[in-house]
Amino acid sequence: MSLLTDKYELTMLAAALRDGSAHRRTTFEVFARRLPEGRRYGITAGTARFVEALQAFRFDDAELSSLTDFLDPDTLAYLAAYRFTGDVDGYPEGELYFPGSPVLSVHGTFGECVLLETLALSIFNHDTAIASAAARMVSAADGRPLIEMGSRRTHERAAVAAARAAYIAGFTGTSNLEAKRSYGVPALGTSAHAFTLLHTTAGQSTSDWEKAAFQAQVDALGVDTTLLVDTYDITAGVANAVQMAGPQLGAVRIDSGDLGVLTRQVRDQLDSLGATHTRIVVSGDLDEFAIAALRAEPVDIYGVGTSVVTGSGAPTASMVYKLVEVDGIPVEKRSSHKESHGGRKSALRLAKASGTIVEEVVHPVSEPPPAPPDLVVRPLTVPLVRGGDPVADLGLQPARDRVSQGLHSLPWDGLKLSKGDPAIRTRMIAPSGSPG
Amino acid sequence: MSLLTDKYELTMLAAALRDGSAHRRTTFEVFARRLPEGRRYGITAGTARFVEALQAFRFDDAELSSLTDFLDPDTLAYLAAYRFTGDVDGYPEGELYFPGSPVLSVHGTFGECVLLETLALSIFNHDTAIASAAARMVSAADGRPLIEMGSRRTHERAAVAAARAAYIAGFTGTSNLEAKRSYGVPALGTSAHAFTLLHTTAGQSTSDWEKAAFQAQVDALGVDTTLLVDTYDITAGVANAVQMAGPQLGAVRIDSGDLGVLTRQVRDQLDSLGATHTRIVVSGDLDEFAIAALRAEPVDIYGVGTSVVTGSGAPTASMVYKLVEVDGIPVEKRSSHKESHGGRKSALRLAKASGTIVEEVVHPVSEPPPAPPDLVVRPLTVPLVRGGDPVADLGLQPARDRVSQGLHSLPWDGLKLSKGDPAIRTRMIAPSGSPG
Repeated sequence: MSLLTDKYELTMLAAALRDGSAHRRTTFEVFARRLPEGRRYGITAGTARFVEALQAFRFDDAELSSLTDFLDPDTLAYLAAYRFTGDVDGYPEGELYFPGSPVLSVHGTFGECVLLETLALSIFNHDTAIASAAARMVSAADGRPLIEMGSRRTHERAAVAAARAAYIAGFTGTSNLEAKRSYGVPALGTSAHAFTLLHTTAGQSTSDWEKAAFQAQVDALGVDTTLLVDTYDITAGVANAVQMAGPQLGAVRIDSGDLGVLTRQVRDQLDSLGATHTRIVVSGDLDEFAIAALRAEPVDIYGVGTSVVTGSGAPTASMVYKLVEVDGIPVEKRSSHKESHGGRKSALRLAKASGTIVEEVVHPVSEPPPAPPDLVVRPLTVPLVRGGDPVADLGLQPARDRVSQGLHSLPWDGLKLSKGDPAIRTRMIAPSGSPG
Repeated sequence: MSLLTDKYELTMLAAALRDGSAHRRTTFEVFARRLPEGRRYGITAGTARFVEALQAFRFDDAELSSLTDFLDPDTLAYLAAYRFTGDVDGYPEGELYFPGSPVLSVHGTFGECVLLETLALSIFNHDTAIASAAARMVSAADGRPLIEMGSRRTHERAAVAAARAAYIAGFTGTSNLEAKRSYGVPALGTSAHAFTLLHTTAGQSTSDWEKAAFQAQVDALGVDTTLLVDTYDITAGVANAVQMAGPQLGAVRIDSGDLGVLTRQVRDQLDSLGATHTRIVVSGDLDEFAIAALRAEPVDIYGVGTSVVTGSGAPTASMVYKLVEVDGIPVEKRSSHKESHGGRKSALRLAKASGTIVEEVVHPVSEPPPAPPDLVVRPLTVPLVRGGDPVADLGLQPARDRVSQGLHSLPWDGLKLSKGDPAIRTRMIAPSGSPG
């Protein structure tokens, strides 16, 4: 865990230990300068994974021995004793975020905070990218269930975190078994073309092979299973499926072709065969736009792979981990066009009485702005870690509820899939006495 | 490891065990139907990680107990005894690939092969996407070193594999310390803006803070270090850097602004200060196009983050794992527009005497085509695993050499960064007696 870190974090630590600055009190902040191009909101994700990783962030002997070629004995001794003892505040997982939202604030000595940069960003940039894309799909599906089945399209460990992030965003479950074991995400599944092809026998027809495969699946998994009907011919496949399972068949899956046309045909065929409760699962390169395009069709469940695990065009969330305060002094990089904002901050969100949000306000932690008379003020920043120990309940269900509430709170334009501006503006309040 | 798998692999296994088809002899093949849009070649990567994962693919008691809610006792007993005992062939890591290239062939019973689908694809789709993007950057850099520094932009474990894949493609090293420990990838690093900001002191100027930071870094890491000069003002930063380190300073890094203009200015300034050997490292949203655009500038080293770890627009390689043969019978899915190719296959590549490649030939494993008289024939498929045991030398340096040789073997058009067709065509030879 502790070596999932950039080398320069450790060389900076070494230099800071040598001149004593490693012990200065600092605040680092995780935020995104902008949303991915054209996105109107983001979903905070990774918070619980980061807090859990923080507990395990230690340097054991094997790890230390891999660092001896470039670190001095004092730095190695510091690492051997390392344990994060500071505080962390941040947005609860599942909360909406916008450009400038301080989704995580890490407080401690420079030495203990700087080491966490790479890991914090890896977790937040990945999980947030997935959850933000997944929420758009959930919104496009308009209440119909979505199954995350993209494990094979991303790194094998990223797949587990992606399943978790998609579930936070409102997916019903995942194909990934480790996500079930690690996080309790419901595991779901259907069948692959390989299973039908496996029942190839010399001298018989493709329809015979398909029937043998369906029979085997129904025998093993019951009639409530999902049969994949597009290996050879879809009309024959649907007929074979109902013949083998009976009209109580749970579902059929279509993984190819024009899904709009096919789902209507298959629905009619199922109904004519008496399989009126058999559901239709569609999959095959679905993204939020394809999901939305199928809204009028008799789709019961969407299976989504590549697009959700790769963030649907935005595989990383461009969050940064910036030093914003040193011994109480707000600091920020001034060169170039990158905008940063010094000082330790909290955030709140303003909404109309109807619940529709209107503004994100990021303010110095000790200087909350006055509450506007006509708006509802909701603080966003909560304590996550105190003295190194987790202090927040970081369950998945509350995070799912937050996403659901967040999507409902967006102005109507905020849910549009087309490219646009952030759904609400972010107001940054500079510390009093600062040049702004 | 074994739960990094889709649920349906296990339910298919259960059904296949029940009707006996789990014991049929099968071949599964990993290939890509197409390259990412406009790409002219791909780089095979993940081979050694897959072979290593295969050795560890076992189900322990904790894993099995997480499966009891949906698997029957016979299937659980099969999993408890699971060990892959089949054979694997494939392209050596670092080899070029094109649409249809059989980069991996897995031979064994259906039961032992089907379980590997998700893990194999996760590894190949991720690692290949990174290596393929990285090779374009190496080609664009035209011999100048590249440092992979994108760990923070991708999942924390994907970052380690990404560093490895970029190194295979020809990067000089990585910022990621776990990639150094796990795979021996050289670890490199510079410094962050936070280190300069850390030296903020009330009542002093930004230039004083920067000098204090540079002094601390030089004291700890020596004059051969790389100083980050764009925190406040670049011209002042370069002057401060040479003042603190002397003209023997190893390098300066510029992370923002118009890098073309800035590198020329900084080179002139360094030379005028006598720091003629001080190198210039550039970073900040570089991709292969930005790297190519800086070819005429005095850049010494490129630092590349987001674009390489996200595959520069193609974060997954769209490889599939398809059942192509059952008990000696070629099989393939026939519905829809997806093209598959039945039968166990090998591949070879044809080149002119000059070394320039002209064609990829994918043929039934027992029916290699006759060698054309005027072309050099090179077999691509090698044995990787026999009876479950690794049989190939899968070192990183041979893989790096293969990428280098592969890039040199491409027709000139193949190295263009613009969108185009695959650099060579792939000829698929159907099994004799097959309908084609």
